[in-house]
Amino acid sequence: MIKVAIIGGSGYTGLELMRLLAKHPAVSLVAVTSREYQGRSISDVFPSLLGVVDAPFMAPDVDKLAAEADFFFTAVPHKAAMEAVAALRSFGKRVVDLSADFRFNNAAVYETWYGPHSAQELLAEAVYGLAEVYPEEISRANLVGNPGCYPTSILLPLIPLIQAGACRTTGIIADSKSGASGAGRGLSLDVLYCEVNEGFKAYKVASHRHRPEIEQELSHAAGHDVNISFTPHLVPMSRGMLSTIYAPLKGNPTTADLIDLLSNHYRDKSFVKILKEGAFPNTSHVRGSNSCHIGLKVDESMGLVIIVSVIDNLVKGASGQAIQCMNLMLGLAETTGLDVLAL
Amino acid sequence: MIKVAIIGGSGYTGLELMRLLAKHPAVSLVAVTSREYQGRSISDVFPSLLGVVDAPFMAPDVDKLAAEADFFFTAVPHKAAMEAVAALRSFGKRVVDLSADFRFNNAAVYETWYGPHSAQELLAEAVYGLAEVYPEEISRANLVGNPGCYPTSILLPLIPLIQAGACRTTGIIADSKSGASGAGRGLSLDVLYCEVNEGFKAYKVASHRHRPEIEQELSHAAGHDVNISFTPHLVPMSRGMLSTIYAPLKGNPTTADLIDLLSNHYRDKSFVKILKEGAFPNTSHVRGSNSCHIGLKVDESMGLVIIVSVIDNLVKGASGQAIQCMNLMLGLAETTGLDVLAL
Amino acid sequence: MIKVAIIGGSGYTGLELMRLLAKHPAVSLVAVTSREYQGRSISDVFPSLLGVVDAPFMAPDVDKLAAEADFFFTAVPHKAAMEAVAALRSFGKRVVDLSADFRFNNAAVYETWYGPHSAQELLAEAVYGLAEVYPEEISRANLVGNPGCYPTSILLPLIPLIQAGACRTTGIIADSKSGASGAGRGLSLDVLYCEVNEGFKAYKVASHRHRPEIEQELSHAAGHDVNISFTPHLVPMSRGMLSTIYAPLKGNPTTADLIDLLSNHYRDKSFVKILKEGAFPNTSHVRGSNSCHIGLKVDESMGLVIIVSVIDNLVKGASGQAIQCMNLMLGLAETTGLDVLAL
Amino acid sequence: MIKVAIIGGSGYTGLELMRLLAKHPAVSLVAVTSREYQGRSISDVFPSLLGVVDAPFMAPDVDKLAAEADFFFTAVPHKAAMEAVAALRSFGKRVVDLSADFRFNNAAVYETWYGPHSAQELLAEAVYGLAEVYPEEISRANLVGNPGCYPTSILLPLIPLIQAGACRTTGIIADSKSGASGAGRGLSLDVLYCEVNEGFKAYKVASHRHRPEIEQELSHAAGHDVNISFTPHLVPMSRGMLSTIYAPLKGNPTTADLIDLLSNHYRDKSFVKILKEGAFPNTSHVRGSNSCHIGLKVDESMGLVIIVSVIDNLVKGASGQAIQCMNLMLGLAETTGLDVLAL
Repeated sequence: MIKVAIIGGSGYTGLELMRLLAKHPAVSLVAVTSREYQGRSISDVFPSLLGVVDAPFMAPDVDKLAAEADFFFTAVPHKAAMEAVAALRSFGKRVVDLSADFRFNNAAVYETWYGPHSAQELLAEAVYGLAEVYPEEISRANLVGNPGCYPTSILLPLIPLIQAGACRTTGIIADSKSGASGAGRGLSLDVLYCEVNEGFKAYKVASHRHRPEIEQELSHAAGHDVNISFTPHLVPMSRGMLSTIYAPLKGNPTTADLIDLLSNHYRDKSFVKILKEGAFPNTSHVRGSNSCHIGLKVDESMGLVIIVSVIDNLVKGASGQAIQCMNLMLGLAETTGLDVLAL
Repeated sequence: MIKVAIIGGSGYTGLELMRLLAKHPAVSLVAVTSREYQGRSISDVFPSLLGVVDAPFMAPDVDKLAAEADFFFTAVPHKAAMEAVAALRSFGKRVVDLSADFRFNNAAVYETWYGPHSAQELLAEAVYGLAEVYPEEISRANLVGNPGCYPTSILLPLIPLIQAGACRTTGIIADSKSGASGAGRGLSLDVLYCEVNEGFKAYKVASHRHRPEIEQELSHAAGHDVNISFTPHLVPMSRGMLSTIYAPLKGNPTTADLIDLLSNHYRDKSFVKILKEGAFPNTSHVRGSNSCHIGLKVDESMGLVIIVSVIDNLVKGASGQAIQCMNLMLGLAETTGLDVLAL
Repeated sequence: MIKVAIIGGSGYTGLELMRLLAKHPAVSLVAVTSREYQGRSISDVFPSLLGVVDAPFMAPDVDKLAAEADFFFTAVPHKAAMEAVAALRSFGKRVVDLSADFRFNNAAVYETWYGPHSAQELLAEAVYGLAEVYPEEISRANLVGNPGCYPTSILLPLIPLIQAGACRTTGIIADSKSGASGAGRGLSLDVLYCEVNEGFKAYKVASHRHRPEIEQELSHAAGHDVNISFTPHLVPMSRGMLSTIYAPLKGNPTTADLIDLLSNHYRDKSFVKILKEGAFPNTSHVRGSNSCHIGLKVDESMGLVIIVSVIDNLVKGASGQAIQCMNLMLGLAETTGLDVLAL
Repeated sequence: MIKVAIIGGSGYTGLELMRLLAKHPAVSLVAVTSREYQGRSISDVFPSLLGVVDAPFMAPDVDKLAAEADFFFTAVPHKAAMEAVAALRSFGKRVVDLSADFRFNNAAVYETWYGPHSAQELLAEAVYGLAEVYPEEISRANLVGNPGCYPTSILLPLIPLIQAGACRTTGIIADSKSGASGAGRGLSLDVLYCEVNEGFKAYKVASHRHRPEIEQELSHAAGHDVNISFTPHLVPMSRGMLSTIYAPLKGNPTTADLIDLLSNHYRDKSFVKILKEGAFPNTSHVRGSNSCHIGLKVDESMGLVIIVSVIDNLVKGASGQAIQCMNLMLGLAETTGLDVLAL
């Protein structure tokens, strides 16, 4: 059993890591830290873990934890993450970081959107943890920057289409919708029940930090710079993310052509399902699972393909993908511990 | 007091008409029909009306009702509507029809999307009831085809931009999201609580019947044929509709320029509010009211304007707009009985 | 027009006061204070008021405000309320206080549950603002302590039954359920969307501060000390409150007998509706309105009456009742400005 | 691998059986029937099972299915269940029935509440499937009547208290609250999204069919006839059930005494967790799991214990408990395939 620890376990992604790791057959969860709750029983804070993860939260003392675990997840906010990761790497520990701190190849892009980066020397070794796109790089990595939720939902369908030359790389629009857990468990007026319930809104229109992350990966797939328009929205539900992507087509492929293209591309991938023609996904179909379901339709009069993809933002969009990366890094089947069906 | 009747009052738009008409100072609601509930007290079926609308639902006997009321709302499904409206018009009654039956100028377009139209002779006299766009035509009309909810949310911001030449008429994309009341009160698996709650989906992708209605009105505004891409989504909430519209720009207007353009255009309109730069609307801001709130931002790197508009699909998207049309037809201030604040 | 001000307008009860007062025909809202938002446009903070209440929030400077308004609502937390009220009373202003500070006759009971009371001299003049029970006292009052939401939903059905000797005063159990807005707009983990949504819980079991308030009023109605068991629960919805009350019967009244008793008692009261036998209320039937709907059934084998009452916790349970009290104090019809139908 | 079949797999309990059985290590799901969907791929109807349960629904031909499977779950409505079960038993098949048809010892009680029973000869062999109460009887049973959801949530805490003589058997009140999935997947106005969302109501007050089932089991535990008052309510959420139980005490036990009593009683039971003093459960803590969490507090001034218990109505309240019974019947550890953590 590999000994695993979580730095920063008091948020929703931390809880989700615990839910999944507690039943993972090849790892043992030896420590979970929380500055806020240290000393308090984990199942006291998260009663859904009662009888399963009852140990106390630990203080975030990286030096001490490095002696106790072999593999780490860092689930703290950006900035805090780069410090924890640098310390863990100095002890030679392998890490999947769930913040944005190690997602960017280019420190300047990171700094434009997130501010100063104090561990730039680690960016070169960090691998972008989109497991279906970079499986080999991840399996060799010591440090993985786990992708953002929005980028995951957008990149999985778009990258194969761009690589195959099926759609253009100008004029792509991604209109995304997320449940409220994407905003985290911090106290903020915006995520109070009465502010979210029975409401729907766009936010950070054309200015969300996930945009440069999506553009980095689309540019990599295309071999040249790609811009997109990206607008996120908040859905009155706890979990789930749906992206509706409008991509101008090259040539005149049919809906069936593009479904075939994606189906073939993902034939050997367990977590990505391409729906048959006429079917479109619902976030409820993947709730609690690590799956991404994708449906699409060509809008002929507009020369577009309309792609609809769904994930659970906390699983394939965060903690599940992080464990999938861990599995690859540890030489395990990538589905190990992740064959949880949607609820 | 004008005597008003509702043909088909057992659905959500019927209930909403009753909620608003019961407090309208210039009209008296004399009859509401329902095939399903006839003879049963209205407030027994809709207890929110207890003590306010306690009369029984009537049978849908148009001949008899024509003798009792001066003005009619028809809130029955399409097809049923064209029959009821034809009968009411034969008695010389003025009507606002909430179905799709009298929204189209061109019977052929209607028949492509909805099937045979048995009252085509009335299409010429019917006015499209988008009250901010056709106020004078509506005030003179005997028959108004009340707009669809999605078209209302999309046309109010787009028409002035197109008329002013600020955006192009090719490549416009409308990504719309609606609460579940838009699907009506009929029994269908799709609108069961457990099917809608904690889920989010697209539906009728590139094939929704509101598309030709939107295209008719955009084409009218542009003076030439306009196509759009339109994808509706279902939000797990009861009321509210938000459309995110991506329109390619002509020239290089700033966000402020376009806000000024819309603000000036709607300066004298009570129900349309243009938000200041940086602000975007939430459906909860208009819940229960007849308002449309609009925010926008130019996405410079993409050459697009991103417009976000919200309405309450049952009020400005249906019953409120129908009453607004009635007010215009009766020579009343258009806000009469509609100055209800959002809840 | 009476000039009215609100001290503490940044919470949900403040917003609800503004929603209702903005359309009240006999009063003019001249000032709303907020320590947090002072200087900021009210409709900027609460966009549902856009175009209706656009003035800025004021600083909570009671001396200055006393010169500007004739009548005050205090909607600040307890403790803060007693200070503001004492200051306003020193200027001779009439006040409805929405906190708990002036609900108790007995300062000792208040202090047991809420801590020290610094304005005990005002308790003697304060009237408990349950408008259907104390209409005359309220009409003469200069200071009204507006009832808690739970007490309102429980006292309205129970007081007449106790006064008529229909039920016993021992063994009464009130099992109450409230939407999340009852917890206010303050930042707290407990009211985050993801903590409330898709969950249901009891809280403050047998220890909620509304228990002594309910007991004070039941004791007053009975003429001797009455204890009840009271358990509140949190419902995943924004608005609405339902109390299920189990009261041991005296004698063998039928369901019809008790419905008659309550119907007669409330015959002349606009806001309390007794449902016919077999009907039970839903919180949605009173959402946004000042009504209380009550249904009941005798459980013969247990010798109990089961009463179900619903209110909107923000309207009849707070701001609507406060305005109803103001109407009585100003000699207006108690329904003035409150004839808003449920949404 | 034991071959298992489900008769009636198109409802929410059928879906939940599939979700859990698909990952059960000791059984193989060989057939699922649905009259409505026969011939259609299961994952087409329930896309959450995509890639996991893709076979078509079968026709409900019991003769044919008896040749294919060894163990059966019947998840059809009452009446249909008794016919299917009688046929399966005639083939010697072991069955867990999820309807009410085999929960009652006394056919007369069944017939009073549900109508004629055509397979009364099987009642004698049927065991009530409350797995923590009747583990040995279930392990020897050929036919198990799976308990109702409300009874499960009420009986698990009450039976040990009654057996220990800690509470009286007169005057017990159970105030229960359920998510909407308890009403099933059939088309009914009552469970439309817009009828449930943002509302809360009591239903079948003092007249729900689960009352005699609860009374049967409490009477069995007490050794004499016991009546209770039972009122169910509908919560605007999909899953989850909470019962608040008010039981008059014998003697003067403290909260700690009663927690100890229940903790000791359930010490060796995996699925029942007694919370420590001061803690109360939330339905969200058991969502998707087979657990029952119980908190309690003595209300001294009333001489009551207030017990709060939660389950997932579809898991411990239906399909999970059915599988728990199957495990016992097959000699497996009762937790096999049921160690799914709450989501």
